[in-house]
Amino acid sequence: MSETNLSMKINLSRLISTFDVSSSIGTTENGGLSRLALTAEDKKIRDIFIRWLKEAGLSIKIDDLGNIYGRREGKNKDAGAIMIGSHLDTLPKGGRYDGIMGVLSSLEVIRTLNDLKIETERPIEIVNFTNEEGERFTPPMQGSGVITGNYEKDTIYNLKDKDGITFQQSLKEIGYMGEIENRPSNVDYFIEVHIEQGPFLEENQKNIGIVQGVKGSKRHRVKIRGKSSHGAYPNSHRNDALIAASEIALAIDGVAKKYEDLSTSLGVFNVKPSVESITARYVEFTFDVRHIDDNIKDQAIELIKEKINEVALKRKVEIDFRQTWEASGTYFSNEILQLIEDAAINYGYSYQYITSPALHDAKFMQDITKTAMIFAPSKNGLSHCEEEFTSYEDIEKVTNVLLQTVISLAK
Amino acid sequence: MSETNLSMKINLSRLISTFDVSSSIGTTENGGLSRLALTAEDKKIRDIFIRWLKEAGLSIKIDDLGNIYGRREGKNKDAGAIMIGSHLDTLPKGGRYDGIMGVLSSLEVIRTLNDLKIETERPIEIVNFTNEEGERFTPPMQGSGVITGNYEKDTIYNLKDKDGITFQQSLKEIGYMGEIENRPSNVDYFIEVHIEQGPFLEENQKNIGIVQGVKGSKRHRVKIRGKSSHGAYPNSHRNDALIAASEIALAIDGVAKKYEDLSTSLGVFNVKPSVESITARYVEFTFDVRHIDDNIKDQAIELIKEKINEVALKRKVEIDFRQTWEASGTYFSNEILQLIEDAAINYGYSYQYITSPALHDAKFMQDITKTAMIFAPSKNGLSHCEEEFTSYEDIEKVTNVLLQTVISLAK
Repeated sequence: MSETNLSMKINLSRLISTFDVSSSIGTTENGGLSRLALTAEDKKIRDIFIRWLKEAGLSIKIDDLGNIYGRREGKNKDAGAIMIGSHLDTLPKGGRYDGIMGVLSSLEVIRTLNDLKIETERPIEIVNFTNEEGERFTPPMQGSGVITGNYEKDTIYNLKDKDGITFQQSLKEIGYMGEIENRPSNVDYFIEVHIEQGPFLEENQKNIGIVQGVKGSKRHRVKIRGKSSHGAYPNSHRNDALIAASEIALAIDGVAKKYEDLSTSLGVFNVKPSVESITARYVEFTFDVRHIDDNIKDQAIELIKEKINEVALKRKVEIDFRQTWEASGTYFSNEILQLIEDAAINYGYSYQYITSPALHDAKFMQDITKTAMIFAPSKNGLSHCEEEFTSYEDIEKVTNVLLQTVISLAK
Repeated sequence: MSETNLSMKINLSRLISTFDVSSSIGTTENGGLSRLALTAEDKKIRDIFIRWLKEAGLSIKIDDLGNIYGRREGKNKDAGAIMIGSHLDTLPKGGRYDGIMGVLSSLEVIRTLNDLKIETERPIEIVNFTNEEGERFTPPMQGSGVITGNYEKDTIYNLKDKDGITFQQSLKEIGYMGEIENRPSNVDYFIEVHIEQGPFLEENQKNIGIVQGVKGSKRHRVKIRGKSSHGAYPNSHRNDALIAASEIALAIDGVAKKYEDLSTSLGVFNVKPSVESITARYVEFTFDVRHIDDNIKDQAIELIKEKINEVALKRKVEIDFRQTWEASGTYFSNEILQLIEDAAINYGYSYQYITSPALHDAKFMQDITKTAMIFAPSKNGLSHCEEEFTSYEDIEKVTNVLLQTVISLAK
C-alpha cells in the first residue's frame, strides 16, 4: 500500500478553526479582512503564525525581508527542501482566502504529516511572504521579489507608505526584521495553493485547478490625433478621434475571442476636449494583452495593429501606438504538475489545467526553483474584495492534493 | 426688359474695398479677426458701419439691444420692409466672413440699388445684429433673440463677461444703447447671406446654397454602469462600461449614414476609473442628433435606443439614457427660396438646396417674419477660425443673387 492512498487526508475541522482565528484579525464590517503588510494586524497574525509553527515542532527563521519560514526536518538534512506557502497580508477590504489559504493549508499539511508520523526524505518548509499585495508599499510581491533577485533590497527598504513611513521602519517596528542568512538556500520545489481569482473552476464545476503557469502581459499606449468638428458638421467629413478609438477598443476586446485563454483590456481612456457637441480631436488610451504564450500575445497584437492601421486610414486620424511594458509568460514545473494531477485523480477530484491570470509569489519563485500552483474555485470569480469566498469543501480538497503532492516529492 | 436682367450686378471692387476695411478691425496675427461683441473693436466697426449707412442715404435706428438698422425708404412707406443683414461680431480668432459677409453684401445691394437709381415699392432695411456669436456673453444670437421674443431682455442685460462686466454696461460703454421703439415693427421678409460652414457647396462645385431651413437638434446624456475587472479577468465575463460605450458610439456615428443630411456627434466622454489594467465601471457621454425634420431625428434616435438596449443586455451593464435638450428644425419661406432659385438660374450660377447645420439670426427671425438664407461656399468647410475663406468670385455671386431676390420681393 502506497503512502499516498485515499485514507490520507487532512483534518478539515482543525483547518476551519485555523481559518476562524485568521478571519478574526483585521476583520471588516462586511466580513472581509483589512490586514495590510507590516501593520499591527499583520504583526498579530504573524505572532499567532509563529506560535502555530512552534506548536507543530518546526524550526523557525525570519529573514531580512520579514519572510517567515518554518522547517520540518527530513531524513536527509542536506536534501533540497520542498517549500509550501503564500502570504497572510491582504488588501484594504480584501478577503479571507487570497494568500491566506495558501499559508493555512500548508500548515494543515504539516500538522497532518505530524499526526500521521510521516517522516519524509526531504525537509519541508512553510513560508509566509511579506507584502505580497503591495498596497501599503508598492509594487506587489516584495518578500519573494527580493529573495529571488527581482527587486533590490534597498529599493524595497526605502519605499514609503502614505504617511511617509518606510518599509524598513515598519518591519523593525513590528519586530520582524530578521537576518539575510535566513533566506532560503537549499530549496528544490515550491508549491503555492491559492484561490483562482477567476470564474472558470466554478463554471466548469472543477475542484482543482492545476496551474500551468502565469500569463505574461504586454501593455501599450495609443494616442489618436484627429480634428474637432462642431456636432453639426457632417459625420462623413470628420476626423473624430473618439469614433476611431471606439472602433479600436471593440477590436481589442474582440480579439480575445480568437485565442483561447487570451485576455485583453483597456484601462486609461482620456478624451479631449470632451465638451458637448464638439467631436474629439484627441484620445489617449492604454491596453494590455495577456497570455502565457508570448507568440499568441504577439499574434493578437499584430491583429490589433492591423485594425489600428485600417482605422487610421478610414477615419483619417494619426495614431501613435507603442508598447510600454512587457512580462513574459511563466511556465511552471511539469514534474510537479504531473504529481498534482496524480493526486487529484487519486482522490477522485475533478480538475482542469488552467493558467493564472494574476501574478503571485510563485511567479518569482519559479526563477530560483521548480515551482507550481494549485487553485481552488472562487465563488463568482471574485477576489480582492470582502465577498471573496471559497467553500471549506473545496479548501479541504485542494489541501489534500497539496498533502499528497508534498509527500510524493518528499519521500 | 425686366428689372432683374443680367446687366444688374453689384460692384465687386467696391465690395472688396468694404471687406478690406472690415478686415482691418480686430485683425489677428494669422489674418483672422477677433471682434467680440460690445468691445472696442466692435465699436470701431459699428462706427464705420453707421458712416457707410449715412453715406448710402439710409435713415438709421439703434434699438435697446444695440441692433443697428439702416432704412432705404420705399414708394409705399407703409408696406412691410424687406430686411437683409447679419452680424459684424466674431469669435476670438474667428474669420473675416462669418456674419460679416451677410452685412457687407447687404450694404453692397443697397449701394447698387442707389447706383441704379432703383426705387422699390417696399422699404429695404439693413441690419447688424448684436452678439450673434455669444462668446463674450453666452448664449448666441442675443440681438435677434430678444427682438423675436426668444430671450428675455433682462436676462441678456445681466449677463456678465469673464471680467464681471454686464451686457448692459458694455452696450452703454460703447455708446450703442438705443431705444426699444426702434425694434423692427413692420417687416415682411428677412434674408441672411452667410458662408456655408460646411463642405458641401465646395465639394459639389456649387456657387449658391439655397437654405431650406436650419437643422433641429436633440441632445442626450448616457450613463453606463458596469463593473471594473482586473485586466487579467476573462473578457467574456466582464461588464466593461467602456466596451459597451464604444459599441454605442459606433452605432451613433453609423446611423448618420442611414438618413440623408443627418448628423450625430458625441461630445462629453468620461471614463471611470481610467486606470491602467482596470476595466471601466462607468462611462458617461453626451450625444446629439441633428436634422431639419423632427421625424427623421426621432427615427434615428429610435435606432440608437434599440442599440443601447441590445448592448445593455449583451454586455450586462445598466444604461441610463435621457434627452437633455431639444430644438425643432426650422423651415424657411418657400416664397423667398423660389425667388433665390430664380435669381441663380437667371445669372447662370450653379446652386443646390441645402440645410443649415448651425443656428443663425435667421433661425429666430423666422419666428416673426418670412425668412430665408443664402449660402456661399466655405473653403474646406472651415468656419469660426482664422483660416475661414470664401472667394470674392463666390461673394460676388451670392450678392448678385441677394440683389435680384430683394428687387423681386420689393418691387
